[in-house]
Amino acid sequence: MRLVTYATPDGPRSGAVVDGGRLLDLGAGPLDGVLADAAALARARDAVAAADAASLPPLDAATLLAPVRPGKILCLGYNYRGHVPDGVDPTAGDPEWPDVFVKTPNTLAGPNEPVVIPPGATDVDYEGEVAVVIGRCAQRIAIEDALDHVAGYTILNDVSDRAWQRRQSQWALGKCSDGFAPLGPWIVTTDDIPDPQDLLVEVVRDGVVTVSQSTSTSIFSVAYVIHHLSQVLTLEPGDVVSTGTPQKLSAAQAVHRPLGAGDAVTVRISGIGELTTRFVAAPLDAAPTSANQEAHA
Amino acid sequence: MRLVTYATPDGPRSGAVVDGGRLLDLGAGPLDGVLADAAALARARDAVAAADAASLPPLDAATLLAPVRPGKILCLGYNYRGHVPDGVDPTAGDPEWPDVFVKTPNTLAGPNEPVVIPPGATDVDYEGEVAVVIGRCAQRIAIEDALDHVAGYTILNDVSDRAWQRRQSQWALGKCSDGFAPLGPWIVTTDDIPDPQDLLVEVVRDGVVTVSQSTSTSIFSVAYVIHHLSQVLTLEPGDVVSTGTPQKLSAAQAVHRPLGAGDAVTVRISGIGELTTRFVAAPLDAAPTSANQEAHA
Repeated sequence: MRLVTYATPDGPRSGAVVDGGRLLDLGAGPLDGVLADAAALARARDAVAAADAASLPPLDAATLLAPVRPGKILCLGYNYRGHVPDGVDPTAGDPEWPDVFVKTPNTLAGPNEPVVIPPGATDVDYEGEVAVVIGRCAQRIAIEDALDHVAGYTILNDVSDRAWQRRQSQWALGKCSDGFAPLGPWIVTTDDIPDPQDLLVEVVRDGVVTVSQSTSTSIFSVAYVIHHLSQVLTLEPGDVVSTGTPQKLSAAQAVHRPLGAGDAVTVRISGIGELTTRFVAAPLDAAPTSANQEAHA
Repeated sequence: MRLVTYATPDGPRSGAVVDGGRLLDLGAGPLDGVLADAAALARARDAVAAADAASLPPLDAATLLAPVRPGKILCLGYNYRGHVPDGVDPTAGDPEWPDVFVKTPNTLAGPNEPVVIPPGATDVDYEGEVAVVIGRCAQRIAIEDALDHVAGYTILNDVSDRAWQRRQSQWALGKCSDGFAPLGPWIVTTDDIPDPQDLLVEVVRDGVVTVSQSTSTSIFSVAYVIHHLSQVLTLEPGDVVSTGTPQKLSAAQAVHRPLGAGDAVTVRISGIGELTTRFVAAPLDAAPTSANQEAHA
């Protein structure tokens, strides 16, 4: 089942995608409430099964919002193995622990919202990632129970300002500019994703595939990551855990240039869908920012 | 003016402290709404001036909550200069940029809530910090305007699990356990803090002062930090920016041991007040966590 949150003049509403291109309304409020409620999910499933697609409005006509408003967005750094020559153990370079950082709520953007390149930013980059949406509160759970706490999967573009990211040991300022976490377009519920370690993650930029790698090559599985995080903090319904990006293909690395106004990036993940993000210039009244113009007080 | 949020059976309410120990009710809802509203602040000031302290209930009888529910809690790493010998430039080791990390919303705790030592945690530590509460939306503001966007100041204990903090390059898992950000007890409005770079930050543990350093020795001023952050992201009313902790005094470093159940730590800051946090064991039904028991899936 593909679930969305969409905008109406009376506020956000939940919906389901029927027959790939029709929108079935599921009631007032964003998806967050539905995802945490097994009975509501069962009712949604019945409603989708009973729906007459031809009588429903087209999904394209709806303004999709980020499918949830997560209390926290936790992201993984390095989580995909690179290519190694035959005979070399691909796990030899694996880190012992996932590297975890946070994107703040101001980063959240809907699936069709453009991302503003911050004034003065010179090295904005994309990262295409499988985003796990929590459905049930998770606190110190075992690996074998971890996926029971997942409501579904969506796509997150972990937009990053590499210049800011390089300036400190902690990446927050490289990760937390407004709108730097486009999310969506929908949540695919877990019954439609039998194995989250068998998804192909691809990024397309200017018509060229720049990332193409299966989640089977990730170092830490979704089940492990949810287990691991839940040892330290409580995951709550609607929270998003983004599972890291595969490296760019070497041909793409060779010609990589930072994102600028006018660029568009599509993240597509098998079994989930596509998230296309346009990048635009800041409004003209935004003052340019130059790191060199700044001085400590 | 000292402003609080306190619990009632009908939900949180805002209040002001009168004559040091009495509570003047300011209406339904947490402080977040009041802080962003200049007219509401002016009414509060008038009400405090007109209040008859003797007729008000004692502050001690109220259950104080965290004064705000910040959308984001942004924290600074290294931000105080250490002691240097005479003749050595104390600014010589200053980093060029503040090191910024995020504490997630699950870390927020009220000023009198005990902090649970997570099961299996072996190296929990305290950090006493001046916390800046944003009053007005701040986006790419100049240093000289930055303090106009501050509503007031409070105290944050940036409780940290050093073992988790050391395991990855990013500190999130060392910083984001549930309840690891006790905040309060109140917000002191900016009119009562003429100079945030002239506050004495102290920590008292077991009756011994373990931290004692003025904000005059901080590397990045409050004004600079607000300016700096606002270049990258939008600060919103109620957001908290915690300005880093001074190092422990060398005598305290020599005898330091991790926090355990039964410990209590008081952070006191001149002009703001005191925040005392008790540390308690996890409930018995919480499964112990051992990093060694974990295995990657």
